[in-house]
Amino acid sequence: MSLAAITPPSSSGTATPTSTSALTTAGISASLQKTAPSLFAQHGTSTPLADLDASLLHATHTTAPRAVPGHDSAETAAQRTCTDHMVTARWTLAHGWEAPELKPYGALSIMPNASVLHYATECFEGMKLYRGHDGRLRLFRPDRNAARMLTSAARIALPAFPPVELIKLVTTLCATDGPKWLPKTQPGHFLYIRPTMIATDAALGVQRPKEALLYVILACFPDMTVSASSRETGKSGLRLLASNDDTVRAWPGGFGFAKVGANYGPSLVAQGEARARGYDQILWLFGDDCGVTEAGASNFFVAWETRDGKMQLVTAPLDAGIILDGVTRRSVLELARTRLTGSVEGLAPLEVVERRFTMAEVVLAADEGRLVEAFAAGTAFFIAPVAEIHFRGKDLTVPMGADGKSGPYAKCLKGWLQGIMYGRETHEWGVVVDEMGV
Amino acid sequence: MSLAAITPPSSSGTATPTSTSALTTAGISASLQKTAPSLFAQHGTSTPLADLDASLLHATHTTAPRAVPGHDSAETAAQRTCTDHMVTARWTLAHGWEAPELKPYGALSIMPNASVLHYATECFEGMKLYRGHDGRLRLFRPDRNAARMLTSAARIALPAFPPVELIKLVTTLCATDGPKWLPKTQPGHFLYIRPTMIATDAALGVQRPKEALLYVILACFPDMTVSASSRETGKSGLRLLASNDDTVRAWPGGFGFAKVGANYGPSLVAQGEARARGYDQILWLFGDDCGVTEAGASNFFVAWETRDGKMQLVTAPLDAGIILDGVTRRSVLELARTRLTGSVEGLAPLEVVERRFTMAEVVLAADEGRLVEAFAAGTAFFIAPVAEIHFRGKDLTVPMGADGKSGPYAKCLKGWLQGIMYGRETHEWGVVVDEMGV
Repeated sequence: MSLAAITPPSSSGTATPTSTSALTTAGISASLQKTAPSLFAQHGTSTPLADLDASLLHATHTTAPRAVPGHDSAETAAQRTCTDHMVTARWTLAHGWEAPELKPYGALSIMPNASVLHYATECFEGMKLYRGHDGRLRLFRPDRNAARMLTSAARIALPAFPPVELIKLVTTLCATDGPKWLPKTQPGHFLYIRPTMIATDAALGVQRPKEALLYVILACFPDMTVSASSRETGKSGLRLLASNDDTVRAWPGGFGFAKVGANYGPSLVAQGEARARGYDQILWLFGDDCGVTEAGASNFFVAWETRDGKMQLVTAPLDAGIILDGVTRRSVLELARTRLTGSVEGLAPLEVVERRFTMAEVVLAADEGRLVEAFAAGTAFFIAPVAEIHFRGKDLTVPMGADGKSGPYAKCLKGWLQGIMYGRETHEWGVVVDEMGV
Repeated sequence: MSLAAITPPSSSGTATPTSTSALTTAGISASLQKTAPSLFAQHGTSTPLADLDASLLHATHTTAPRAVPGHDSAETAAQRTCTDHMVTARWTLAHGWEAPELKPYGALSIMPNASVLHYATECFEGMKLYRGHDGRLRLFRPDRNAARMLTSAARIALPAFPPVELIKLVTTLCATDGPKWLPKTQPGHFLYIRPTMIATDAALGVQRPKEALLYVILACFPDMTVSASSRETGKSGLRLLASNDDTVRAWPGGFGFAKVGANYGPSLVAQGEARARGYDQILWLFGDDCGVTEAGASNFFVAWETRDGKMQLVTAPLDAGIILDGVTRRSVLELARTRLTGSVEGLAPLEVVERRFTMAEVVLAADEGRLVEAFAAGTAFFIAPVAEIHFRGKDLTVPMGADGKSGPYAKCLKGWLQGIMYGRETHEWGVVVDEMGV
């Protein structure tokens, strides 16, 4: 078993070809230390116990490989199918991290009194593995996901780990299953990557867990940029149902900023009601003045013209701790701030604003003809233009651009991001995964 | 396999002896229909699919029975040991509830992409099985737990079930394992009962689960009325650390009223900090004015004299939806309202008040010498007198009664409740479990 390498971009921004030295744990570490030095900072483990160490990984390959479902199949749409392998690593308070294992994907054995089944001691990440048009596999900003996983773990009383070791484990699994499950002959597709940590402590006391399991799985996911309501009605765009006063997703002093299970389960009843009424997602509001926070499990952006004629891209700020620090959100903000402040592709220059904003502002902008577009942004739904928001008994129509399929800024940003993800643009955010046996 | 019966109290309030007719599912149903008719009301399942039906239970007994740990053993203190058997019942959206199984206690097989491991789609109950001084086994108000489990399941998008069927399953498990794990020769002890429901749906989509598992386990639990800080310091009573503004347990429009995992995991960091600082539990405050809500995972009561000389027992109200409708809380309120409004056992008559109250009121009462006592109330910690509250940098000393071990009202209420639980007082809240093979 040898670890596959993440090939870092060179300092000039051009992806370097694979070198044999990169195909070792030391090679990955050296690469990441250059490109993401923050990953090597102190990560919270202050004990002399064993730390998570991807170089100790032991691999057992499946003897029963499964068939890969088609990208447009019902099986892929069900989001149930995972690839042939998974990576696991066990942690105990007494001994720290055990050697990780790569092994056949299959059921976990969990005691009925395990902490995770009672106290929601669990956190996860959402990433994707992209098969580029140049034939290479890429991750998108894995350092951001690994760092956030560490933040989430700390919030839910799960153990710390060096984020770079998680990236190595993700990379190894992608390098192992990527060649078969994302064939080179089918560029432009992706697998969904789900790093997860759960408390396996078999004890009912309401206390910090003493045992945990970190694991990574790869799932076949459909392209979710066509919304459920679109498939039903043929009309483009997301239809959002604004949350009522009696349903609040997250609260200051809570955990809305962390990717912990406790943010998701409690949203499913409202989400189910939205779907039953023909909407795609809940638009989560907060406060008596109906501040706009997130759309479903994605961040939410609106583009409008201010009354004094400035074009603005607005999204809720992170400081209240009630919304997720999304990797797509962050990337949209960074691209808009670096590439859209001047006139580009016929678009008016944008002012990019992170601030609290309310439904009243959105409604007023729409009424006055100043609303340009809105979109959700997240790993699963990517950049999803919004066509309609139902708020307090009224349907607010959101412009969907000249072609009726997307507002112009969403279209432009999505194009740039896809270019980076699928290797049309060489960029430090697109991190090449060297494939096993290739 | 025959179901053991819950013997209901007769209408005169005297526990009836076991009758053979009660040892059938029909017998239990008939009994419960008399004593708890609300359990038979519509419970939210509106499909023609199979409902949960305890009479279909299939039993497989263990061939490897385990040793029962001592009540004061380290094994019991660890809260890790469960009894020989468990009850499980599987649900699917397509077919409804399958026949329940009683089988040897052991690990569950759960797919890595199961909803419960990612989205905290889980809820549970906390109950106890008591070995009475009259040699009989009793549950305490199981109808309240079963009804609350249904409420919790609905909040977290898990399936509905007839609460009475859950009581039957709990009763059957208790009847099976009670004789060995709570021997008649050792009255005054209990097992902890943990009914649980988890979403086993192996699909990563953020949506209502399509598969679930209901299960019941019995755990050996220590007597937790002696607090951790007492064991360390020798001083009686709970020491509580008031939560800071930056840590909020529950909020209006959230799920604080439901016994869902999402209320517990996010509290563990604060709880761990409290323990590390020598406190037992967090006293959860809410709002800018520091409203008092819960203590750890228990409800919280304070007894004070008002400025105009009335003795009051005060606890936070249920209407904001941020605190749990505790069975012990409810029982304390009901006993205080029926038995403590006149002078009893040398105590001044109590006015019982459910209203929002603040730390400023508690501090003022203490400063003015009007604070009589405070206690936490819940199934795990039972009635636990509070000795100290650390609030905004100051330690507030709470009176602990004449003997320094408990305030007078807590002592009186605890005595009455113990009398009912352990069969010294015949009361409709104490529900006898007929034992298998006895």
